Amino acid sequence: MKVVTLLTDFGEYYPGVMKGVILRISPDVRIVDITHEVEPQNVFQGAFLLYHAYRYFENAVHVAVVDPGVGGDRRAIAVITENQCFVGPDNGILYPSASEDGIKKVYRIREDISELVGELSTTFHGRDVFAPAAALVSYGRLEKYFEEIDGIVKLDLFDYSIEEERVRCRVAYVDRFGNIVTNLRGEEVRAKAFYLSGIEFPLVRTYSDVDIGEPLALIGSFGTVELSVREGNAAELTGIRKGGVKIQLEVVK
Amino acid sequence: MKVVTLLTDFGEYYPGVMKGVILRISPDVRIVDITHEVEPQNVFQGAFLLYHAYRYFENAVHVAVVDPGVGGDRRAIAVITENQCFVGPDNGILYPSASEDGIKKVYRIREDISELVGELSTTFHGRDVFAPAAALVSYGRLEKYFEEIDGIVKLDLFDYSIEEERVRCRVAYVDRFGNIVTNLRGEEVRAKAFYLSGIEFPLVRTYSDVDIGEPLALIGSFGTVELSVREGNAAELTGIRKGGVKIQLEVVK
Amino acid sequence: MKVVTLLTDFGEYYPGVMKGVILRISPDVRIVDITHEVEPQNVFQGAFLLYHAYRYFENAVHVAVVDPGVGGDRRAIAVITENQCFVGPDNGILYPSASEDGIKKVYRIREDISELVGELSTTFHGRDVFAPAAALVSYGRLEKYFEEIDGIVKLDLFDYSIEEERVRCRVAYVDRFGNIVTNLRGEEVRAKAFYLSGIEFPLVRTYSDVDIGEPLALIGSFGTVELSVREGNAAELTGIRKGGVKIQLEVVK
Repeated sequence: MKVVTLLTDFGEYYPGVMKGVILRISPDVRIVDITHEVEPQNVFQGAFLLYHAYRYFENAVHVAVVDPGVGGDRRAIAVITENQCFVGPDNGILYPSASEDGIKKVYRIREDISELVGELSTTFHGRDVFAPAAALVSYGRLEKYFEEIDGIVKLDLFDYSIEEERVRCRVAYVDRFGNIVTNLRGEEVRAKAFYLSGIEFPLVRTYSDVDIGEPLALIGSFGTVELSVREGNAAELTGIRKGGVKIQLEVVK
Repeated sequence: MKVVTLLTDFGEYYPGVMKGVILRISPDVRIVDITHEVEPQNVFQGAFLLYHAYRYFENAVHVAVVDPGVGGDRRAIAVITENQCFVGPDNGILYPSASEDGIKKVYRIREDISELVGELSTTFHGRDVFAPAAALVSYGRLEKYFEEIDGIVKLDLFDYSIEEERVRCRVAYVDRFGNIVTNLRGEEVRAKAFYLSGIEFPLVRTYSDVDIGEPLALIGSFGTVELSVREGNAAELTGIRKGGVKIQLEVVK
Repeated sequence: MKVVTLLTDFGEYYPGVMKGVILRISPDVRIVDITHEVEPQNVFQGAFLLYHAYRYFENAVHVAVVDPGVGGDRRAIAVITENQCFVGPDNGILYPSASEDGIKKVYRIREDISELVGELSTTFHGRDVFAPAAALVSYGRLEKYFEEIDGIVKLDLFDYSIEEERVRCRVAYVDRFGNIVTNLRGEEVRAKAFYLSGIEFPLVRTYSDVDIGEPLALIGSFGTVELSVREGNAAELTGIRKGGVKIQLEVVK
């Protein structure tokens, strides 16, 4: 069974509707939720979470919809890459993943694809455009509603600056444990510790290198610097509770 | 594979148990979650969300359990309609969907169906009654635990009143973006704007018709009037954070 | 299709990544989420929720990851029981379920299993160790990365003490309705009512035995004593909002 993944900022009701649309058109796909809790309209976070998830799937169709421009004139696109397909709005959310995997073709999705659903709202193209598009892409039916185009809106996940004693980077994600996941790649870091909000986060290898309740920094499962508290909550400790914001880390060498 | 959908107010643990029960009896179905975050005991909201989701599925079994009467004497029912099947408590939650699709037969589910699960609690008929019922319905086995009956409890999703300058309607759903979804059907509205909580929501076609941060009203993906803030949160702006409550909109013509 | 269940404290993004890993290795399994909202690091709660869910599945692989020791020296294990398989950290989370079902063999999972994923983080063994292990277990491939061992860390779900007028037990789970689920087994109780936080909870059979808004206790769907408010929220009423804490109930006979 072909896999279709879903990543949105929709919360947990609207994706069920998308699944109905997908299964009606393409009953044999397997649908996997990646997340529906991207912060509302946070395209950067959606791109970051997709980039660190798509690679664990083999030859899947990834639908990513964080879409503040819905109902306006942004394009809906489908991107065929070396090993995957991506479907979503052309606002940068697909770019880091698609370009890493190797873009082969880019298509604009025509809005009259919504005739397969029976309606075209101005607010829920996840249902009316992207779900039927994903279903058609899943079995390679790109004749009717897809027009090949050049180009795709770009987005840089790793837009940080490193100085001697300071890194300006982003909070990409705050997970359920309160771990603050930055976009600062581990291989670029040489530090003994970081300071954020006046608190020292010593850079260690694993949680058990500090005592329970103590702050720490490590290279986490995204390959980037994470700020944590062992069996605690770094988001509560620092007051940084959501992704996307820019932060400045003081570096102790 | 036959599709079984689940819609409840159970949160995210209890439905996993229901899935075990369903798959043990009917291993070949595909289970799709519609939502498990209906507001606790809010039968109206469950009916509203089911009504706007079921139509996107083809020939599915829809299990909807918002069930304040569990363990008491309300009936458990299964309803066969033109294109779907519905399973749930007989408290109105199934009525708008089933009657729209065309009711063919209504069955009472006998509680001894719980012998397929091995127990009958007084609190979790999702597991003990509705899950095994859905599994049997999914392959048409209605002999043993089902008794045909007449009638079903009714519920009106569109119980609003429209005067010259005022609409009394309901908040049906507040989504993750803070959009306030009313039950007021779009085709009945002729207005330039609405007032709620003293705030003007101009009626527009799409989000980008107003500036970022500005309030607006539009006919949303449910086909009803929604109050929104572009890239903002109308629920926070107005203090209306949950579905079911009645509101009064002032109409500007 | 073989069923693989997932139970974690990961929230809703990380499990999607685990599913990619599982499906790449074992494309024909069916994955069912039990819960991903175990309270962070609450091994007791994870064990309790697994124990009351696994029995509804037939011959499944249950992956349970609540893992405060990740990246340290706790063992990763797979347990083959009479009717099921269990995969997780060796911290007690698997013990009540596995021992009830009848342990046949216990294996240590070697960390070089992560070569199937391509990386070994110190923070996300759900992805790097337990997901590939579950995939291999699902089709019985235990040759390469599994070493048979004796023993498994134990955990007692029912560690309460009963005196004449007092029970010291635990809050195992607070569900979405605010029901306070204790670990006190129903068959051990002879009481007319309980007092908690100075509030009387009369022991009844079902919700409708009291008026709407009134507190009650009953033997719930876990087979243990639950404190509830009919169509209300006992967690809000008592201030007890999370599982794991010990409580003292006064017993009225």
